[in-house]
Amino acid sequence: MNTTDNKPPIDFWFDFSSPYGYLLSEKIDGVAAKHGRKVRWHPILLGIVFKATGSAPLTLQNQAKASYSLHDFSRSARFMGIPYLHPSQFPLATQNAARAYYWLHGQDCGLARQFAHATFRALYVDNRDISSPDTVLDIAEKLGVDRETLAVALQSPEIKARLKDEVDLAIQAGVFGSPYVLIDGEAFFGADRLPQIEHWLESGSF
Amino acid sequence: MNTTDNKPPIDFWFDFSSPYGYLLSEKIDGVAAKHGRKVRWHPILLGIVFKATGSAPLTLQNQAKASYSLHDFSRSARFMGIPYLHPSQFPLATQNAARAYYWLHGQDCGLARQFAHATFRALYVDNRDISSPDTVLDIAEKLGVDRETLAVALQSPEIKARLKDEVDLAIQAGVFGSPYVLIDGEAFFGADRLPQIEHWLESGSF
Repeated sequence: MNTTDNKPPIDFWFDFSSPYGYLLSEKIDGVAAKHGRKVRWHPILLGIVFKATGSAPLTLQNQAKASYSLHDFSRSARFMGIPYLHPSQFPLATQNAARAYYWLHGQDCGLARQFAHATFRALYVDNRDISSPDTVLDIAEKLGVDRETLAVALQSPEIKARLKDEVDLAIQAGVFGSPYVLIDGEAFFGADRLPQIEHWLESGSF
Repeated sequence: MNTTDNKPPIDFWFDFSSPYGYLLSEKIDGVAAKHGRKVRWHPILLGIVFKATGSAPLTLQNQAKASYSLHDFSRSARFMGIPYLHPSQFPLATQNAARAYYWLHGQDCGLARQFAHATFRALYVDNRDISSPDTVLDIAEKLGVDRETLAVALQSPEIKARLKDEVDLAIQAGVFGSPYVLIDGEAFFGADRLPQIEHWLESGSF
């Protein structure tokens, strides 16, 4: 029996510029697979979500919280066994990366997942400026994607509309930050909810 | 060898109206004791901290975050094995409870600890209005404290100044929310940092 087909997928929303989104991205598929689940990844633009919900990035809130958050990003990464180097440009615009993700997803969802991992690692391991379309194209090209085709696609009205729709759907689903995970209607916010996610997947309730 | 005497104490700041502060209050002493540490408890007024740092309570932020937080308070309590009933009055003023704590601490620090536990449980288990001086006096009286003496103390300029000083010191120490824990200069914010606190106490680093 293929249990993966019988259980509903997990939804995982994140912004590519979210450190805790990156941390959870390195764990969520493995944890889900252990319990026969697949994960649907949804990159979004947190700036639009914050505008809609009246919030702000952790590092642009008060100084005490900003300093703590910067420290906690690295510490939480070490605690979870994930490499992390805080990017010199932060936060940064992620619409090119998110658009590339959705365009790739239309071609090959496995490739889109590889691109998402590569993009997160480009930012949080190799300190690359993923806001630049050139960087996004470099990352995709290394995965075998035709650079010119993707460059044209990133400017298409369809892919811009697709990303806008995904952000709207996220807000409708209750997403107010990154990472945000929905399993069987149960919401989990933050990479630090991973133990509770595992507990939910094991027991199906709380 | 009494290791407790050799290791610096842990500082634990909280507001009595903070659900995650309550959750951590049920665990922090036990975790600390396992590693030969004592904990200094510091009730503060988060309203003043938020004013100074430009923040707001979780349930008074946007609707999506408020709904999620309400759900997460109870779920996190179940996950940690702690009884929790969300109070009908929330958030609520805690200056009477905090002043009583500091006055009792001046008499008997063990009694102050018992009072802090009883106050948290009165709010989060028995749904009592701990903003009321009468409730605070009831709680203290049950612990053998003279009701009239404490009633007078709660109105004294000295105890009001003491609480004000404690809040100022917390802000100076970098506290921006509740619970906030400082161990050997390392800060941990939130009840969900308990696994990292344990890791720090075990290894002395990260």
